[in-house]
Amino acid sequence: MQYGLIMAGGSGTRLWPLSRKDRPKQMLPLIGGRSLMQLAYERLRGLFPPERIYVCTGADHAEAVFANIPELPRANLLGEPVGRDTANAVGFSAAVLQRKDPDAMVVVVTADHVIKPVERFQECLRLGLEVVGEQPDALVTFGIVPTHGHTGLGYIYRGDPLTLASSHKGAYRVQAFKEKPDQATADRYVESGRYYWNSGMFVWRCDTVLRELSLHLPEAHAGHMKIAEAWDSPRRESVLREVYPQLQRISIDYAVMEPASQRKGKAHVVTVEMPIDWLDVGSWPSLAETLSLDEQDNAIDAPLTLLIDADNNIIISHDPDHLVATVGLSDMIVVHTRDVTMVCPKRDAQRVKELVQKAKEQFGERFQ
Amino acid sequence: MQYGLIMAGGSGTRLWPLSRKDRPKQMLPLIGGRSLMQLAYERLRGLFPPERIYVCTGADHAEAVFANIPELPRANLLGEPVGRDTANAVGFSAAVLQRKDPDAMVVVVTADHVIKPVERFQECLRLGLEVVGEQPDALVTFGIVPTHGHTGLGYIYRGDPLTLASSHKGAYRVQAFKEKPDQATADRYVESGRYYWNSGMFVWRCDTVLRELSLHLPEAHAGHMKIAEAWDSPRRESVLREVYPQLQRISIDYAVMEPASQRKGKAHVVTVEMPIDWLDVGSWPSLAETLSLDEQDNAIDAPLTLLIDADNNIIISHDPDHLVATVGLSDMIVVHTRDVTMVCPKRDAQRVKELVQKAKEQFGERFQ
Repeated sequence: MQYGLIMAGGSGTRLWPLSRKDRPKQMLPLIGGRSLMQLAYERLRGLFPPERIYVCTGADHAEAVFANIPELPRANLLGEPVGRDTANAVGFSAAVLQRKDPDAMVVVVTADHVIKPVERFQECLRLGLEVVGEQPDALVTFGIVPTHGHTGLGYIYRGDPLTLASSHKGAYRVQAFKEKPDQATADRYVESGRYYWNSGMFVWRCDTVLRELSLHLPEAHAGHMKIAEAWDSPRRESVLREVYPQLQRISIDYAVMEPASQRKGKAHVVTVEMPIDWLDVGSWPSLAETLSLDEQDNAIDAPLTLLIDADNNIIISHDPDHLVATVGLSDMIVVHTRDVTMVCPKRDAQRVKELVQKAKEQFGERFQ
Repeated sequence: MQYGLIMAGGSGTRLWPLSRKDRPKQMLPLIGGRSLMQLAYERLRGLFPPERIYVCTGADHAEAVFANIPELPRANLLGEPVGRDTANAVGFSAAVLQRKDPDAMVVVVTADHVIKPVERFQECLRLGLEVVGEQPDALVTFGIVPTHGHTGLGYIYRGDPLTLASSHKGAYRVQAFKEKPDQATADRYVESGRYYWNSGMFVWRCDTVLRELSLHLPEAHAGHMKIAEAWDSPRRESVLREVYPQLQRISIDYAVMEPASQRKGKAHVVTVEMPIDWLDVGSWPSLAETLSLDEQDNAIDAPLTLLIDADNNIIISHDPDHLVATVGLSDMIVVHTRDVTMVCPKRDAQRVKELVQKAKEQFGERFQ
């Protein structure tokens, strides 16, 4: 059977103070009142019924996930006791799924982006599933068609097109994975038309990815299998808490995709082209790109605001009783929450994570 | 007998959103946790016992005044039903006092400034009282020795020194009152050494100022006397509410001091020199001058703050549970209250009153 898996790790520290340890960014109503988690779930719902959609996230966030997606079966929450990066999220989830269904094929998606149009995204997932249907040992990674030379992303260098039994086009062998490039290299990649942004989204059979993990990351793989064995027993929590923290932090790209793409032989590393708008929502300015602008180019997501001669600002508050008022303000980010006010120039948006770090040093967990 | 009268009109709209219709700036704990009202009261307490200190302010603020000054006798609150500028605050207060004590002599002070040193301020008040003691028809205005060519204040041009029976120096005839000057004129005033800032603080006998009002502002004077007649009767409130709103809005300077200073004859308009630090607390930058600065020249009056690479800002919050956090911020004012966040560049500090006006248009009384 085919399954969907939403991976929602990461705390979103650059969206502090709205994003918090126990209210991570994927659970916040950031996009027209809906959360990234809800949007990711709805995108998968076009392909799978609720019982075949799983969410892998911090165990602490379980209740937030169910509040976001009331129809998600409680058994479909795969809670990590601590974050150990994507190789382990993917590996432990695959191990659990594969024990339930030895033929499990899984689409792995993230919940960090706003994606448009949803229909085209879903077509790409379907094509990925077809590829895996025809080639059971394929490791398929989705490649976003780049719109500009982004230097903050890894790239996929595509090789020859795959010949599929179906008439669909858009699947290619992966020639190489490329690290985050400098600007000139990134621009050259985009111009060539043969590079994609590495989306961190995949499709594969669970047994295939588990075999790859056993090859490239044998210790972690043993841990994943141990957890899966205990999953439906009373020992689940104790094994999770014993094994998971010991796992090596590493991404699935580093652990599996890159070495597999360079290995001659059985593994087929494939990329499926994804020609979609793919808006990261990792920082206040990137969130602002999902908002409509007022006549002075202010991006406002706040119930009560009062702006005089203010332009190019980002104003965020989800407090229905609180007014944010400004006069003469330009290029500034103002975020109000009940216990924190954060103000910084747009050019310092990436430094918000420094505030989170310093808040931890100074106030402990209070504002995390 | 001698009395002190604190006039606390005005709402302090440039200190919004901390200063509000029902929490005017004089009542706020702005100066090291103390309010301007408390500081003004303490300055007078060096000269008068509580029963001879009166406060004239909006009737709405009566409870706030008693909360600020618990020892103030309740009878000593002279509440205006509406604000009608200083000529009427002074006139109605003088009429009430003079009915209680036909020999009443009153020092009239404002509560808008931080004054240092208090001892020297009190010496000046004592000298003013001496002048009135020797010259019962004197209208004494206190002249602040200017430290720079302020263009936002009126000036007093002094004439010949008064010869007093006591040996004290520092009292002069007033030659003329001058309107707010342009910068060149202001600088010339200061350089001459013969001009003072008009403090809006006075000392006189109540019968003297009432006689002057009867001469220069006869209609208002009739109203003041009518209120005073009804003061100790059950009709106080109804007469106040009937008469007070009809009074012409005008300052005591325009109504009495200027015409009296130009009139040949009986009235003696005198200025007593006040060599004090006189810090206006009318706007956020002027309030900031009363605060100590951190190493990056930030003026902070907030219990919880977190600043990274921030300089020359003003950060105000009196909410003990709320954190104000900034990174990369310069020359900005950030004020947090429970229901409003206000952010503006320092250069727009005077425009905060535009926000108050616009908030009224948009939200009615809610944020006033």
